Formats: sequence, structure tokens, C-alpha cells
Amino acid sequence: MAIVALAGGVGASKLLLGLSKVLPAEDLTVTVNTGDDLELHGLSISPDLDIVTYTLAGIANPATGWGIREDTFAALEWLGKYGRPAWFHLGDRDLATHIHRTALLRSGSSVSEAGHSISAAFGVKVRILPMSDQPVRTMLRTSEGLLAFQEYLVHRRAEPVVEGIEFAGAGQALPSPGVIESIGSADGIVICPSNPLISIGPILAVPGIREALRARRSEVLAVSPIVGGKSLKGPSDRMLEQLGMKASALTVAGLYRDFAGRFLLDLQDHELQPSIEALDMKVALAQTVMRSDDDKRVLAQSVLSFLGQARK
Amino acid sequence: MAIVALAGGVGASKLLLGLSKVLPAEDLTVTVNTGDDLELHGLSISPDLDIVTYTLAGIANPATGWGIREDTFAALEWLGKYGRPAWFHLGDRDLATHIHRTALLRSGSSVSEAGHSISAAFGVKVRILPMSDQPVRTMLRTSEGLLAFQEYLVHRRAEPVVEGIEFAGAGQALPSPGVIESIGSADGIVICPSNPLISIGPILAVPGIREALRARRSEVLAVSPIVGGKSLKGPSDRMLEQLGMKASALTVAGLYRDFAGRFLLDLQDHELQPSIEALDMKVALAQTVMRSDDDKRVLAQSVLSFLGQARK
Repeated sequence: MAIVALAGGVGASKLLLGLSKVLPAEDLTVTVNTGDDLELHGLSISPDLDIVTYTLAGIANPATGWGIREDTFAALEWLGKYGRPAWFHLGDRDLATHIHRTALLRSGSSVSEAGHSISAAFGVKVRILPMSDQPVRTMLRTSEGLLAFQEYLVHRRAEPVVEGIEFAGAGQALPSPGVIESIGSADGIVICPSNPLISIGPILAVPGIREALRARRSEVLAVSPIVGGKSLKGPSDRMLEQLGMKASALTVAGLYRDFAGRFLLDLQDHELQPSIEALDMKVALAQTVMRSDDDKRVLAQSVLSFLGQARK
Repeated sequence: MAIVALAGGVGASKLLLGLSKVLPAEDLTVTVNTGDDLELHGLSISPDLDIVTYTLAGIANPATGWGIREDTFAALEWLGKYGRPAWFHLGDRDLATHIHRTALLRSGSSVSEAGHSISAAFGVKVRILPMSDQPVRTMLRTSEGLLAFQEYLVHRRAEPVVEGIEFAGAGQALPSPGVIESIGSADGIVICPSNPLISIGPILAVPGIREALRARRSEVLAVSPIVGGKSLKGPSDRMLEQLGMKASALTVAGLYRDFAGRFLLDLQDHELQPSIEALDMKVALAQTVMRSDDDKRVLAQSVLSFLGQARK
């Protein structure tokens, strides 16, 4: 059963790990947000691509949710001695990824090709695609001015009030090779439980992707990233409210209604089922909070089973 | 007493450390070879500038002669996983230097400015100047073809037979700001006990430097890098012989005779004194092999005292 997953970083990784356990690797394609990418210390850093790759490679740091297991921070400490910003925590092993990617990009490789070189080095067979090979940068209009996404999230700890979101460069970007084709040919498409505004939002902003999803609406399943009015990970809830929306699975369903025909709702939120069904979406209920590897597999099975119904 | 030292890397560092102990820091200017510079993993690496800086900062690794004390190699191991060449040993802390330098160069800083940022971070008050802000690359014609210097020295462990030496780019290079001026105004100039062919040679190949030294010939003192027919450090002896010269302090004196009026010879080589004096050079004898910090200070004192005689 060929599955395409649209993913941000940490929020998506747990479900992706579950899917990779219940599907043959070659059946899974992940299209990843690159709106969070940044250039720091002259290095091209793709945090979401990396966390997805590290997770599927089995080398992610489970304690932090980012970076590589048992990584050290000697280089970062010394970059600090040179007066370089040290707020973005780059481990020594992680730094090798950024150095390798940057060297490949400078020698003419695309973001896709560089990403493939990195995932291949760890024997990852799942196909991991950046949403675009062109730069798209998620910029937040905030109470402290326009901030690049990592500035806002990591440096300013998501404290500024968000007043608007822009995806700089999205208009000129193309979906990377394979993104549209894989959506077209998949048996089902999963929108991972990532921040709808700044993880899934940038992917949808790349011309052509939202349209490709719409054409597959009945096979597109979104997993709610909001449970009981709180985000599973990160500042989605706060951000929705600052932008005048209610932090609720129903809000997310509303944001996705034009291209997602199925919505996987947490059991806690069962009372929202009628309202979401009123958006012309089929709803299934499941335990979406993943605490153990078993939870991840079970949720992945629920996703596949709900998508399987679409094919009957 | 304002002193200028011309220096390669490891060979020069011991004497530079000695000079820095017996002179006020502001009296010492070091012009360093950058012919060994290389680009690896997309990073601009200046091995000789770094080892001089690390030595004067008191953070060099005394065991290896290169790199930073107690450095770790996590990033390098991971660069190897990505199939990148791992023969040039880059420690994690050392890597921060290369990342910082590369970022500065890419944002428009000169090699001099980047070097100053690095030495200033460690509070080094000695003035360290690259020989040039333009790229000069020491290329060796060898039995295995044309090799960049670090390829030859580190990757191929100085095993290929050297048939010729070229300094690519030297014709277009300019001395970096301060190099010519400091030679002109110094009370004395020291040619450190570095490889005359591939450490001092590139510096002399930058247009204007050899001429500036010639104008100060009686105040230019060379410390022999060859003792008893063997190089103090590195492959100088072998390289001289492969190029048809005898590995001897006398050969080095001959290479420097047009611009160096003084030669500090090791006590072991006292029998060469008359032949070197016949080159119109004043000769002093000293113990030039530096095993302890005390040896370094004593040799530095000998250098200053021999140069002091030039001023009388």
C-alpha cells in the first residue's frame, strides 16, 4: 500500500516511525517541510529534513526530539568563543550533516540530492523528499517584528505574539521531483500531526501541491495535531489563538477541508466528530498521543486501516 | 625590540612560543605561510595560520603538533559516514575555527581579517599576518603527478618523490596589509626553522616580500631547520635531496643568502660555519633543537642577542 506522508519535524516523526514499522520501506514517501531551513555559520541547515531522516535512521535523540543520540557539543562551544550565535544547538555529529549538505549544495547538488546522500548514508530506504528544491522561508510577523521561523521558535522560544505568517519565496518554488507524482499515485496520503500553520502550511504554499491533494481528497487523511485544545508538540495552539482561531481539532479540520476527506480525531475530542463531519469529512477516532513505540505502531495501523476504507 | 618572524606551521611554532615569552607581545609580528591552505568539506582551512595561533594562544596540542589540545573527533567520524575524505584530521573544536573563518570569508572578510577575529578570540596580542590575502597554493610535481601540499604531506604521508614545486597564484598575490611595512620597520627579522622550500618558499614567492627582506639583509637572521643533515620537523631533508640538493644547513643558507645576512647554526653543525660565512653571512652557534619550554626561551634569547648585534 503506497503511502505519502506530509510532515514537519518533531511532531511528525513519531507517526512516521510507526508507519515505517508497519509498511515496507519502499511503500512510504515523506514530503517534508523546508520552510524552517536556515543558514547559520555559513551552513545550510534543514531541521525538519534532518529530524525525519535521523528518526527513520534510528539515530535521533529521543530525549530532545531533535539532533543525534549521544551527540556532543564541542564545536558549538568553540563557535561561541568566536562570538557566533550559539542559540541553535548544533551537535558535533549533527554538524557533519550540515557541513556535508552545504558542500553538496555549493558543488551544485539540489536539496533533494543532498538529502538523498544523507539518508542513503544511514541506509534509510524510505523516500524522503523536500517539499521544494527552491528556498521557501517561513517568516513570522510578530510583536517583535518579522522573524525567521527558527529565530522565533528557538532563539525567542516562541514568546513573541504572532500576527501573521508569510512563506517567502513560495510563489517561485516548484515541488521537488517526485512530490506531485507520488501524491498522484499513492494509495493514501497522510497529513502528519504537525503544526498546520508552519509545518504543513509551507508545504501547501508550494504551487501545485495543494491542488494535487485536492484531486485525491477522499484518500487524504489528516491526523489531528491538537488534542483537547492543546498541541501535541510545539506552539500550534498558542499560534492559532494569536491569529484569532480556536486551538481545536475542528479548526485544523477547517484549514484542511478543501483537500482532506478524512480526519483522525483523538478519542478525547469525540464531541467534535459531528462538527467535523459537517465539513464533509469522514472521521475516525483513535488514541493519537504517542508515548511508546507501540503507540506509534498502533496509530500507524489506524491510519492505514482508515485509508484502506477509502479504497473499497 | 620590534621583531618580525617568517613562519610555517609546526616547525616555527616552538621558536615563536619562545619569542613570545621573551618579547612584549606587541613587539612581535609573525608573517605566516598560507601556501598550505586548502578547501575541504567546503571549508577554508589555513593550517599554518591555525597552528601559529593555537600555539600562541596556549591551546595547541603538544602531542601532535597540530590541532587543539584535548580535541575530539566526532564530526570527522560522521563526515566519514557521508563518504567524505577523513584523511585530514579535523577536531570538533578545530572545526569551529574553519567554520568561523569560512563564514567570515564568504561574507566578504579578508584572510587577514578572519585570522584577526580568530586570534583576538583567544586574546593573542602577537600580530599574526597571512603572507597574502590572495590564494597561493603550493603544488608539488611528484612521481604520482601534481599534488596539492596537504595531499602530499598528510594524505600521501610525504611518500611520493618530489620533482618540482610550484606556487600557484603567487604571481597575482599581494603581501597582506602590514607585511612589507613590518619588515621595513622591524629591528630584526627572523626566518623561523621551517621548511625552506614549502614553508618559507611560498612567503618568498609573494611579489615584494623577498625584495623587502633584501633591503634589510644585515638584520635578517635565519635559524637553520636542518641539524646534522636531518630536518627538525617534516620532510625538508628528503625533499631537498629529491630536488638534487644536499640536506644540510649550508644548503639552506645558500637558498637564503641573498636576503639573510645572519645564520643561526646548530652546535652540531659547527664545521659548516666557514662555508656559510663564505656566503657573506654572519654565523652564530646555538642549540637549536627545542625539547622543553626552556629550550624555546633560550633559543629565542640567542636570536634576539644575535640580532641585537646587528643594531650596534
